[in-house]
Order: sequence, then structure tokens, then C-alpha cells
Amino acid sequence: MAHIQLPIAEELGREFPGILGPMTFRPETTAPLNELVNIPLRGPSTLSKGEREMIATHVSWRNDCFFCQTIHGAVAAAQLGRDKALVEKVKTDWPNAEIPPKLKALLHIAGKVQLGGKHVTAEDIAAARDAGATDLEIHDTVLIAAVFCMCNRYVDGLGTWAPQDPDIYRQRAALIVEHGYTGVTEAAVAAIRR
Amino acid sequence: MAHIQLPIAEELGREFPGILGPMTFRPETTAPLNELVNIPLRGPSTLSKGEREMIATHVSWRNDCFFCQTIHGAVAAAQLGRDKALVEKVKTDWPNAEIPPKLKALLHIAGKVQLGGKHVTAEDIAAARDAGATDLEIHDTVLIAAVFCMCNRYVDGLGTWAPQDPDIYRQRAALIVEHGYTGVTEAAVAAIRR
Repeated sequence: MAHIQLPIAEELGREFPGILGPMTFRPETTAPLNELVNIPLRGPSTLSKGEREMIATHVSWRNDCFFCQTIHGAVAAAQLGRDKALVEKVKTDWPNAEIPPKLKALLHIAGKVQLGGKHVTAEDIAAARDAGATDLEIHDTVLIAAVFCMCNRYVDGLGTWAPQDPDIYRQRAALIVEHGYTGVTEAAVAAIRR
Repeated sequence: MAHIQLPIAEELGREFPGILGPMTFRPETTAPLNELVNIPLRGPSTLSKGEREMIATHVSWRNDCFFCQTIHGAVAAAQLGRDKALVEKVKTDWPNAEIPPKLKALLHIAGKVQLGGKHVTAEDIAAARDAGATDLEIHDTVLIAAVFCMCNRYVDGLGTWAPQDPDIYRQRAALIVEHGYTGVTEAAVAAIRR
């Protein structure tokens, strides 16, 4: 059980997992939380959706948030043609992954942001620019890392539960790829309010 | 100068300070960022606005974010009848501050969330409940701490500048108390887009 009494989802006989639990408890914050994930992860960008999901997955792994690293890892794999091995490598060991230097430079910045914003140096930014990153890509990388430092703490700070079965994440990832985060989370909030 | 080229505010001859700079760079995210601050800090609550601002200030201090701890400290002081000394004490040494046990228990949880969500224990939650905290107060404390772990990283991860003159924060705090965060930040975004 979570640290606080969250609404019970009839279809599960318990709370919705991960961030869905608190979203059903405090539905006013669902829309802005979704937008802060949707805009940098799924909005127009010169970074692919798979690359952006890998940044979110890596930060969530650094924060040891099982729910977030698993669902965003599943979404990243779905966006990358189900390349689960690449996602796992980038999540846990990006310096040795087969990815472009620009994505490595951005993952390096994201990891610094996870430690704390002041860890990012002018040299980190210059290296990303040298690898071809634009200011918008650098901005969005910092924002994604910051947003997941929030989401990871929201999920774990309230002691929410997380399914262990990878199939559940794969199925949910397919829905997210098709309908976006807002569609999927709003269904949970609506189910509670019925 | 910030790590990326942010829009120049005519009235300042440079970028807007703190979170205002990136907000003018990526205005799509301004509204959801504001809502995530406005709802838990200024929406209806059994915690006073001053108490909630002190939680935000303490977390920002823990993250060493000068801009956020100074502006939210100034807002907290304004909400508490200009009690700057109390805000300073709570920010840096809440266990020895003259505040109710419930607020101490919530600040303890907020500090754990700043370290990482998994640091919050069932005992921390039980202690807050024993001190009279409701589930909604516990939820909002975790959310405020998580939101500021995002904002602090967004502000410092992009290397934004922060004014040193306390009068600037006091003046801005008075505007925030009167008009809320949305009114104040949207004026900055509008000034850039003119």
C-alpha cells in the first residue's frame, strides 16, 4: 500500500500503480504533469521520440525509480522498433552504447542535472554543441531530466506500487505510443471518478 | 550568461533571471510549470500559504538554488507578515525553529524527498500523522518537494542568472502575493513576445 490512502481502482482491486495513483488522488495536477511530459518527450523536436524517452529512462534509473524507468524504457523500446537491448544499454551504460556522440553528450548533461543543476558546466554544454546539439535540444534535455527528477520523487516519495510483470509495461507502452500520456492517464482518473 | 542563448528582455538589457529566462525560451511549458507551483502553494489547503512557501524554500535551499530559495523565501516572509527571521531559521535549521510539530514533520518528509523519494519511510509518514497531518497535506508536501527538485534543476541546469539585491526579490514577492505566479511569469513571456 502507498504511504497515503489512494483511491482504489475497481478493475485492479487496489490503487493504480506508479504516478497514476497520486494522479487519481489529486486530479487537478494531472493535466500539468502530463503536459510537462508530453511537450518535451512527444512534441515536435529534432531529437527522436526514442532518444528523448531514453533520456527520461536513464534519469529515472539514476533516481532508482522502478516504475518510471520500466514504463519509459518500454516506451523507448517501442519507439525504437522494440530494441530493448539498446534501451537497457543506454539506461545503465550509455558511454559504451552504440549511439551517436550527440546523444551521449546530452545523456551526460542529463546525468549532471540528476545530481543537481549546478553540476552542469560550460564544458559539458560546449561538448554537446561540438557534437551538433542545438540550444533547443540542450534545453529540452535539461527540462526532461528535471521533470523526471520530479516524477520519480512523486512516485517513490508516496510509496506507490509498481507491477513486476514486463508485459504490463509493454502493453501500456503500446497505448502511450498510440494515444500519448494524457490519453492513458486520463482514462485512469476517469475510471476512479465514475 | 546562461548556458544557452535565452531571449533578451528589453527592460533589463539581458535575459530575465531564474526560471523566467527558460520560460521565455520555451513558452509552451510556462503554463504547466506555473500550475504545478500554483496548485500546491496557493490553492485551497489546510496548510497556510506561508507554511507551503517555507517547504518550497527549504527544498530549494537543500538543492542550493539561490534564485528559488530567495524568491520563495521572500514570498514566505510576505505571507507570514514579513517574518524574515523565521523563514531563514526554517530554511536552514527547521528542527530548532519555533514552528508547530506538524510543520516539522512535513519539512522532514520534504527533506527526504529532496534526497530521493525512497528515503521517505512509513515511520516518517506515521510521525506526520501523529502530529496531525492529513493525507492531503502529506501528498502536497511530497508534491511541493518534487516540483522544486524540478524547478531548481531547470534554473541551475541552464545556468540562469539571479539578482543579488534582496529588494528585487521583495518587490517581486509582493507582486506574486497579489497576482500569483502565473500573472507574474506571463508578463515576462509577453514582454519578450511583444
